[in-house]
Amino acid sequence: MPTLKEAPAEATIVSHQLMLRAGLVTQTTAGIYSWLPLGLRTLTKVAKIISEEQEAIGANQVLLSTVQPAKLWLASGRYNSYGEEMLRFKDRRDHELLYGPTNEEQVTDIFQRFVKSYRQLPQNLFQIQWKFRDEIRPRFGVMRGREFLMKDGYSFDIDKAGAERTYQAVFGSYLKTFRRMGLTPIPVRADSGAIGGDMSHEFQILAETGESLLYYDAVLDNSEQTKHEDLTSIYAVAEEKYDPRTCPVPEQRLRQSRGIEVGHVFYFGTKYTKSMGVSVMGPEGTPIYPEMGSYGIGVSRLVGAIIESSHDKNGIIWPESVAPFHVGLVNFQEEDISCKEIAETLYGRLCAANISVLYDDRPERPGVKLANMDLIGLPWQIWVGPQKAAQGKIELKKRSTGRVQEHTSESLMNFFQPL
Amino acid sequence: MPTLKEAPAEATIVSHQLMLRAGLVTQTTAGIYSWLPLGLRTLTKVAKIISEEQEAIGANQVLLSTVQPAKLWLASGRYNSYGEEMLRFKDRRDHELLYGPTNEEQVTDIFQRFVKSYRQLPQNLFQIQWKFRDEIRPRFGVMRGREFLMKDGYSFDIDKAGAERTYQAVFGSYLKTFRRMGLTPIPVRADSGAIGGDMSHEFQILAETGESLLYYDAVLDNSEQTKHEDLTSIYAVAEEKYDPRTCPVPEQRLRQSRGIEVGHVFYFGTKYTKSMGVSVMGPEGTPIYPEMGSYGIGVSRLVGAIIESSHDKNGIIWPESVAPFHVGLVNFQEEDISCKEIAETLYGRLCAANISVLYDDRPERPGVKLANMDLIGLPWQIWVGPQKAAQGKIELKKRSTGRVQEHTSESLMNFFQPL
Repeated sequence: MPTLKEAPAEATIVSHQLMLRAGLVTQTTAGIYSWLPLGLRTLTKVAKIISEEQEAIGANQVLLSTVQPAKLWLASGRYNSYGEEMLRFKDRRDHELLYGPTNEEQVTDIFQRFVKSYRQLPQNLFQIQWKFRDEIRPRFGVMRGREFLMKDGYSFDIDKAGAERTYQAVFGSYLKTFRRMGLTPIPVRADSGAIGGDMSHEFQILAETGESLLYYDAVLDNSEQTKHEDLTSIYAVAEEKYDPRTCPVPEQRLRQSRGIEVGHVFYFGTKYTKSMGVSVMGPEGTPIYPEMGSYGIGVSRLVGAIIESSHDKNGIIWPESVAPFHVGLVNFQEEDISCKEIAETLYGRLCAANISVLYDDRPERPGVKLANMDLIGLPWQIWVGPQKAAQGKIELKKRSTGRVQEHTSESLMNFFQPL
Repeated sequence: MPTLKEAPAEATIVSHQLMLRAGLVTQTTAGIYSWLPLGLRTLTKVAKIISEEQEAIGANQVLLSTVQPAKLWLASGRYNSYGEEMLRFKDRRDHELLYGPTNEEQVTDIFQRFVKSYRQLPQNLFQIQWKFRDEIRPRFGVMRGREFLMKDGYSFDIDKAGAERTYQAVFGSYLKTFRRMGLTPIPVRADSGAIGGDMSHEFQILAETGESLLYYDAVLDNSEQTKHEDLTSIYAVAEEKYDPRTCPVPEQRLRQSRGIEVGHVFYFGTKYTKSMGVSVMGPEGTPIYPEMGSYGIGVSRLVGAIIESSHDKNGIIWPESVAPFHVGLVNFQEEDISCKEIAETLYGRLCAANISVLYDDRPERPGVKLANMDLIGLPWQIWVGPQKAAQGKIELKKRSTGRVQEHTSESLMNFFQPL
């Protein structure tokens, strides 16, 4: 639990400051971070939620290499156009390689090896893998790093109608994914930029400290409840595209909030399959070019974004689904026999009930321990101190509300058991 | 399930051939592989077993960046000595970086930032992360690739006695780890090579196709049962070190088998802490240099090694703990209503019972499907065909023995349920 009292001066946004202070990550070099135990636990939970929602729509997980040969990008025409953000190098035999900034070419190449007939369509593949983009000014910690963990998915359909169905399915899975992390996602119609293509949405999550100002239909604040069938067409735009004269949403239904981009979906048709000459045998016996989409979520970025959307002046407030541990157990007097016995017994019972517990029995002052617990932001804190212990009592604090309740060990176990 | 009838000619060893034929991996470029769905499922299970056994000895998981700054290696003196296997490059701002081939420097650097006092020792950190070693002749598929997944662990102790206790604990966890994968591990005393240091063991697993010939005390064949307390000192050497005149093991207890290296442990004392100037405040108030060890398991290599140790002429025979799915469900007549109903009901019931099932309902001939199932090597096959289905029967084949038993759906569920 390597916490810091002060954030290093280079951390200018709250998530970066809190991630360094709470010991979630540590910088290796500019824009490159290593994940410490608490941070890795959250990163793993975020990745797991993403995988589960991709599997729920029938996508298959793969894991592509981080290093790619330049020739794949020469085939698509992007090797020269991608720019300096691509980290290029040569191996000892002078072959041109690169650290993948994205994987459209590589997945299309794999698709081509194994998929020969329209009967094998649709295909929807995803991976969660490290990428590298050599940003000229890496900043904001893991929010705009150079080496970052990304979930990228790629779909291949027989025709445009199929590709649009897949786009809708991924779109829906993204809304679920972000909601499971306690976030409010706003899908904003976007340009397709370097990826190219016909249709694209950014997923922004609401956070007061967000980088963009969004204008959107209030339906999206509560889109889980809405009966609207096609959420891709609901009004949501970034500030630079907002024009009150043309905005179709009535004023009383228009919302304005700041957001952070955490995902991006693209439908780009046959751009890569045509440029790379990837076809399958169609039902008529003639080759057809599959219609593709690609879909990304910034996995490591999300850890920062969740903190931006959920913190207070004392530290992080983790949503339960992504907290590194469910409970922090604080023994105020680690040398007091009664405190030690109560704390250790509770620790054993909570672990046995499959509730993840971080047990702080360091010889530190109670104030330091409580400040650390607030900083690292576990959803629940259990306090064991000598005064209450003498009455057979312990205290339970809910991090998000700050409310403290008295419990016996029994009532505490009953409180957590149904989880 | 992108299986191949023939392995590409460059695959000269059986695990490489079977991994390509069974569609576990596909080559991106020389020595660099991408993992397809079945392969990734096994890779993930292998990694999970390794993590669990590291956590069981109190090691904490971290995740260090794949890209490192050259300056860390200049500090330890290894930047120039490591040789051409290190993949070096410059970023757009002309900073010297490298793709980590191992992480002693990086972990020592992180240790130094957070650990200031002997009271914070011991520390035992591990990660499972991609590494790159630019082998001049990458070969044998994932067994000797350039980009590979490795579990690497690093320990810091206050003194030599502590470091030796940690070495023993990791040593024991490695034996358990490999046994959980159905393997027989042989710890062979080794040179410490490029890592440097005082004590080192290689973990070899037995496989007829192994690269090294080992001579070892028969006690190790069954070390789980042995009461021997210190397994680090039991006789086991590679052929080049075997000398019948000095071998301390009586002939009737001496075994000779081929092995594949899958792990390596090193105790190297203060080599890196001294060269990098990393000390902590000792109990006497004077700085001390922590004693280090490092511990590696080739995670992606293990997938190949398990196949080398467990296959037959028809394909892979996965040990249950690392099989991509527990059961393969083959419907011979996907258009037969009765077959379809039996197969789909069973599929639902097995999934509900948390038994992972790969359901093959492709419109292929039964012979093709059975050959594919043998090739991919799931522990159990359930066959649903029209003749048996008419009698309310199905067949269950155990891949490792080839034995086929008749079942009703009920008796089959009873067979699997207690899992």
